[in-house]
Amino acid sequence: MWKTIVLQTLSRLVKRGRLEVTLPDGSRHEFGEGTNGPDVALRLTDPARLRHLVQDPELALGEAYMDGTLVIERGDLRQMLTLFAINGGRDALPPLLAAGYAARFRARRFAQANGLNRARANVAHHYDLGDDFYELFLDADWQYSCAYFAREGMTLEEAQAAKKAHIARKLLIQPGMRVLDIGCGWGGMALTLARDFGAQVTGVTLSENQKARAEARAAAAGLSDRIDIRLQDYRTLDERFDRIVSVGMLEHVGAPNYGTYFNKVEDLLDPDGIALIHTIGRCGPPTTTSTWLAKYIFPGGYNPSLSELAGGIETTDLWQADIEVWRGHYAETLRRWQKRFEANLDRVREMYDDRFIRMWRYYLTGAEVSFDAYKHVVFQMQLTRRRDTVPNTRDYLYAQKAAAE
Amino acid sequence: MWKTIVLQTLSRLVKRGRLEVTLPDGSRHEFGEGTNGPDVALRLTDPARLRHLVQDPELALGEAYMDGTLVIERGDLRQMLTLFAINGGRDALPPLLAAGYAARFRARRFAQANGLNRARANVAHHYDLGDDFYELFLDADWQYSCAYFAREGMTLEEAQAAKKAHIARKLLIQPGMRVLDIGCGWGGMALTLARDFGAQVTGVTLSENQKARAEARAAAAGLSDRIDIRLQDYRTLDERFDRIVSVGMLEHVGAPNYGTYFNKVEDLLDPDGIALIHTIGRCGPPTTTSTWLAKYIFPGGYNPSLSELAGGIETTDLWQADIEVWRGHYAETLRRWQKRFEANLDRVREMYDDRFIRMWRYYLTGAEVSFDAYKHVVFQMQLTRRRDTVPNTRDYLYAQKAAAE
Repeated sequence: MWKTIVLQTLSRLVKRGRLEVTLPDGSRHEFGEGTNGPDVALRLTDPARLRHLVQDPELALGEAYMDGTLVIERGDLRQMLTLFAINGGRDALPPLLAAGYAARFRARRFAQANGLNRARANVAHHYDLGDDFYELFLDADWQYSCAYFAREGMTLEEAQAAKKAHIARKLLIQPGMRVLDIGCGWGGMALTLARDFGAQVTGVTLSENQKARAEARAAAAGLSDRIDIRLQDYRTLDERFDRIVSVGMLEHVGAPNYGTYFNKVEDLLDPDGIALIHTIGRCGPPTTTSTWLAKYIFPGGYNPSLSELAGGIETTDLWQADIEVWRGHYAETLRRWQKRFEANLDRVREMYDDRFIRMWRYYLTGAEVSFDAYKHVVFQMQLTRRRDTVPNTRDYLYAQKAAAE
Repeated sequence: MWKTIVLQTLSRLVKRGRLEVTLPDGSRHEFGEGTNGPDVALRLTDPARLRHLVQDPELALGEAYMDGTLVIERGDLRQMLTLFAINGGRDALPPLLAAGYAARFRARRFAQANGLNRARANVAHHYDLGDDFYELFLDADWQYSCAYFAREGMTLEEAQAAKKAHIARKLLIQPGMRVLDIGCGWGGMALTLARDFGAQVTGVTLSENQKARAEARAAAAGLSDRIDIRLQDYRTLDERFDRIVSVGMLEHVGAPNYGTYFNKVEDLLDPDGIALIHTIGRCGPPTTTSTWLAKYIFPGGYNPSLSELAGGIETTDLWQADIEVWRGHYAETLRRWQKRFEANLDRVREMYDDRFIRMWRYYLTGAEVSFDAYKHVVFQMQLTRRRDTVPNTRDYLYAQKAAAE
C-alpha cells in the first residue's frame, strides 16, 4: 500500500527533469518528462522508509540520506534536491501531503514559539557543536552568515569583510557610539565595529561557546574595554543604543514573534538611532520550515516572507528606511563553505561519524538549492525611529567606494 | 448631545499641542497639553456639522473647510492637519469612531473593488479636470508623481528629471526594447525613455485628456513611431514587454486587487524582463482611505502598507530584486506644487470657484502632512522573473553618477 502511494505521489509531482527510483523490492520506476531539470536515479534500500515517505516526505528523505539507505546512483545531492524543489510546489501537493502541510503551517505558533528557555536550547543545539568544527568550513573571521561578493573574484574572506563594511555604512557609525549586536556569533562584527569605527559594542548571544570565543578574540585584539559580550536573550535587555545590528539571528525568532522582535528593537533604539536587520527570507508566500531542517539543524527556525517581516515592523512606529535584497550571494557563500567542509573531511571525521557528515552535507547543499529553487534571499532592512535619520538618497552607501576606485 | 460627544472626543484625542475650538453657539473650549505639537484655534460656524463630525470626522472636517464654515483663527491649515494627525492615532479612537473605522476597513473590498468601468470613472474624476488646470501647479513635463531631490537646491524640473533618470537606471533599458508604461499620465516618462534610451514605449491611461496630450507631445517631438499611447485598462493587455514601468498608478488599484495587479505584471513581462513599480505607501499597518479623500480626490484609491504590497507580489513567481523607500521627497514635491498653485491662484479662479480652491488646498496640504505624520513614503519595487536579471549589487545605480561628479 505505501509503495502504491509513493509511486502515485511521485508520478503526480515529478514533471520537470527525470527521476528514476529503485525501491527496496528491486522494482524500478521512472518519472518526469526528461526536460527542464536534472536527471537523477535513486535507490531506496530500507522498506520501512516507504511509509515514512508518505507521512512526512521532507523528514523521510533527509533521514534516509543520513542513514545511507537512500543512494544516489545517477546525478548528485544538489541535483536530487533541485529536482524535488522544482517539482515540489506546495500548490500541487496531493491531498494527504497538503493536509499535513496545512497542519504544520497552523502549528507554527507552537513549533516556533521560542520562549526564553526554548530559544536557549535551540541555539545550543546548533552553535555549541564545537568551535573546532565551525572552524573547518567558515572563514577566518567566523562569519556564519551570507557574504557579499561585491566584486568578481573575491575570496570568502574578502566577501565577508565586504559584508561587514556594507552593513557598517548603512549604520552610519560614529566613534563612541553604543552599538548592540543581537546574535553576535563569534564576535566578528563586534570586533570590526569596535576596531575600525571606534564603537562601544554590546554583543548578546545564547551560545556559551560563542561568548567565550568572542571574548577571547576581543581580549587578544586589546578591545575588551570596547566590547562587552553577554550570554543574554535580547528580550531581557533594558537599555538604549545608538545603533542596533542583527545579522542572521532573525531566522531563529520564529514567525509568531516578529511583533515582539521589532517592538524590542524599537524600545532598545535611541530616537536618533539606526537598526540594520539582516536575515534570510523568501520571495514567496508564508510557509513553514522543512520538518527535516527543524529537527536536525535549526529547531524553532523560520525564513520569513517579506509580507511577514513587514507585518512585524508595522506593529511598531519604525520607519522602513531601505530594504536591500541579496539574491545570489548566499548560494555562493554556501558553495564556499561546502568546498572547505569537503576539503577538511578527514578532520571532520575525527569529530563526527558518517551520519553527521551526511547530515551536514544535506544541510549545506539543501540551503544552497533553496536560494535558487525556493527563491530564498537575504533581506537587509534599515530601520529608524525618525524620518530623516539617514540621508534621503542611497548615494552615501556607494559614493565613497566609487571615488576610491 | 452632538456637542457633548464632539467635546468628549476631542478631549480624549488631543494630547499633544493645543487646540482651541469655538463652537457655533459661541462657546470656547481648549484641549491638549500645549507641548510637542502645533497651537491652533478653530471656529465652527455651521451647527449641522457637529453631528457630522461625530459620524464621520474626516469627511466633516474636510467639507467644513471647503464650505468655509471651518475657520482657522490661529495657525494654518498645515498646522491644523498636523495637530489632528499626531493626535488621531486610530489605536486611541473612542468606541464609536473605532467601530466606524472597522466597518470602513471591512468595506475596502467594495469601496476599492475598481472593476473596469469603475476604474475608468475614478480616473476621469481626477485626471480629466482639465490640462489647463494641472499646468498651473505641475512642472513643465507634467510629472504628477513624487520628484527625486537627489541633490541640494534642485528645482522641481530638475528633481522630476532625476526621478525619471533613476527609474531608467533601475530598468537597465537598451535601445529597441519594448517598454510598457502602466498609467502613463501625460507621457513624460514615455518621452524620456523613447528619446533618451531608444525604447519602443506603449503607454496606457484611462484618461482621455492624458492620452490626447501625450500623443500630441510625442508627435511634437517626432517620436510618434516610438510611442504608442492607448486608452486602455492594463488588465486587458495581452502582450509581452521587456520592461514595465508604473509610476503613481498603483495608488488607484485598491487593496483587494494587488494579487491581480502583480500577476498581470508578471504575465506581461518577458522572462528576462524588469518591472519597476513606484507607488505611495505607508510605514504602518493596513488601514483604509480617508473618507474625504475617497469622496473628493481619489475615489477607489488606497496607499498600501509594505506588508500588503509584498503579499500581492508573493502570489506571483516574481523576485523582489530591490525595494527603495523615499521618505522626504514627496513632502517636498507637494510643497513645490502648493507654491505654484498659490502663485497661480488668479488663473485657477478663472476656472473654479472658491470651494474647489479650498478643496485642492486641503488635498495638497493634507498629502504633504501625511508624508510626515502618517508615515507615508514612496516604495520603488524592482521586480524580475529570473533571479539574476539585475546585477548582484546596487553599485550600477550609483557608479556612473559618482564617476561623473
